[in-house]
Amino acid sequence: MSTTLIGVKDLDAIAIGAALYGTGGGGDPHIGKLLAQRSIRLHGPTRLITLDELDDDDLIVSVAMIGAPAVMLERLAETGPLITALRELEARLGRKASALFSAEVGGLNSVIPFSVATELGLPLVDGDTMGRAFPQLDMTLCTLQGINAWPLALADEKGNSMLMNTIDNAHLERFARSITMDMGGSCYSALYSMTVRQAKASLVQGSISMTHRAGQALFDARARHLDPVAALVRVSNGHCLFKGKVTDLQRKIDGRWSKGLAAIAGLDDFEGSSAELNYQNEFLMARISGPGGDRVLCSTPDLIATVDLETGEPITAEQVRYGLRVAVLGLPCVPEWRTAAALALVGPRAFGYEHEYQAVEQLAMEQP
Amino acid sequence: MSTTLIGVKDLDAIAIGAALYGTGGGGDPHIGKLLAQRSIRLHGPTRLITLDELDDDDLIVSVAMIGAPAVMLERLAETGPLITALRELEARLGRKASALFSAEVGGLNSVIPFSVATELGLPLVDGDTMGRAFPQLDMTLCTLQGINAWPLALADEKGNSMLMNTIDNAHLERFARSITMDMGGSCYSALYSMTVRQAKASLVQGSISMTHRAGQALFDARARHLDPVAALVRVSNGHCLFKGKVTDLQRKIDGRWSKGLAAIAGLDDFEGSSAELNYQNEFLMARISGPGGDRVLCSTPDLIATVDLETGEPITAEQVRYGLRVAVLGLPCVPEWRTAAALALVGPRAFGYEHEYQAVEQLAMEQP
Repeated sequence: MSTTLIGVKDLDAIAIGAALYGTGGGGDPHIGKLLAQRSIRLHGPTRLITLDELDDDDLIVSVAMIGAPAVMLERLAETGPLITALRELEARLGRKASALFSAEVGGLNSVIPFSVATELGLPLVDGDTMGRAFPQLDMTLCTLQGINAWPLALADEKGNSMLMNTIDNAHLERFARSITMDMGGSCYSALYSMTVRQAKASLVQGSISMTHRAGQALFDARARHLDPVAALVRVSNGHCLFKGKVTDLQRKIDGRWSKGLAAIAGLDDFEGSSAELNYQNEFLMARISGPGGDRVLCSTPDLIATVDLETGEPITAEQVRYGLRVAVLGLPCVPEWRTAAALALVGPRAFGYEHEYQAVEQLAMEQP
Repeated sequence: MSTTLIGVKDLDAIAIGAALYGTGGGGDPHIGKLLAQRSIRLHGPTRLITLDELDDDDLIVSVAMIGAPAVMLERLAETGPLITALRELEARLGRKASALFSAEVGGLNSVIPFSVATELGLPLVDGDTMGRAFPQLDMTLCTLQGINAWPLALADEKGNSMLMNTIDNAHLERFARSITMDMGGSCYSALYSMTVRQAKASLVQGSISMTHRAGQALFDARARHLDPVAALVRVSNGHCLFKGKVTDLQRKIDGRWSKGLAAIAGLDDFEGSSAELNYQNEFLMARISGPGGDRVLCSTPDLIATVDLETGEPITAEQVRYGLRVAVLGLPCVPEWRTAAALALVGPRAFGYEHEYQAVEQLAMEQP
């Protein structure tokens, strides 16, 4: 059993880790961090707890933004609509949440619940539904465990709200995505209400601490003038897959998602090769072309992250710019994502890539 | 105060009248009628009541299908999802409906509530929100009176449902239309919950009886071998604007609406002229071109209906076929639709037509 008090400085580290585990998507956690830090300054530190601090029958709920990351970032300025959504959901369930949790441990949605929990005096569970970020709300380990994302409460800043009950998480994703577009490209939600018993069977536990450690490792490396990229690789049990300079970018927001690709020309050991990263909110596929032929470097559900070659600062897909010098990291996903059922939900083919998933550590070993 | 018992035969007349007042849209009431007649055979006649049969504080609710008429017709086979929507709405409001009413008095939605009311043992109010049919759920006299269509409960046959709360009826229309598309092009709803006091200030009262009279007038004319078109014109206080043969049809269902036009070559007195009818679910604009130049015959919010030249049977926009011989009727809308605020909501310009509304009876007088 443990409770950790999360202060303003901890949020700096968590936001860095969340950007790394956001695997290019989920929205830059920076603004969410500022919002959380404001809440902490006003109300005191966030109580980050393990699930065994709660009773098995206690109810926990996630609050999250839904939408294209760029739009979410433009709009996030207040917790009001998140609290509206939470209250709507609680009213529907006829009971109150004992704690909140992050739907994803990457990007904006990993830090947003800190604000709401702190404001409402609720603890935050150290865990999430996926151990990374994914573009759809049904792409969670909870879906695989038959745990419903619904009832889903949605709200916007104008005062519109709704409650959805669906027959499965896939229908919910479709309905919520449509309303998100109607609400201007992003909206606020409360979802994945579950008992602590269900959470123990489905959440990735300790994943908030994991982001904290990653951010802290980066800060430590910088303070001690060590290679920050190497520090991130070490703390995340990851692999440095490529280093290079961004030479091309294609990007479109089709309303539902940000989609695009980044082309990177190799530097250092990767001189003469080029890499291409594809994303749909999150990076989903990294390929290399070079003297040794064409190969997949890493694919979903393993995590692909771009970080600044000098500072180690994670760079989201939205922030990738021509000329940036980056390292491409590959991080192994949690083992639960590597089953056949999980790969059917979030593997390469689920996103339209004709590639048979291979674990990033295996692909890295095969590197010439 | 009055209660009328509506039996199976009455429904035949009401469905004819609903097709007329459906002004080409709203879906052919035929299938809805069969559903209502089945309910009446099982449970006895529908009690059609005037509002003064209820207490001013009683709650009344409408149940309706939303979607493109052709899709609604394909799917309507049961009242289950309508009752689901009604129960969701009642649960939200914390009280039960004392009576149901029809959202529109034209098309499918004018007869659907008969089934639900009869099954549930509830009376049906003799009234509706518009005295015709319109393509959007916010296009009602209630909107003009500041009466909310929300909370809106939506359901489909699969078991998906949701409850929407919005800041105005226009937002609700947008959200509901998106979900309708996600639900396959049509869905089931409960909406416009209001007190009898509010209903007295906003509903078109007696409009179900009006459809009943129209259908009865047609049956009587047929039985007595009188001109059925003339009988419909007389009972509806309408005008026969054109007679001809359908020569061209353009039609598309864009997911949200059925849109198209029908071209009609004049017959009898209209030989040498042609008419064009535009529709978006409902007929919205009728124009004539001929020796006397081009003129508008009738425009929204007045009602445009096509009926078979020989039988007087109303023909919906979906049913218009090449070669059909039709009369185009123009019926005056209720006077509440002729104010500036009403015309801003449902006048020609609200649908993109560059035409200043003129009352159909005025246009008919100007006819050469």
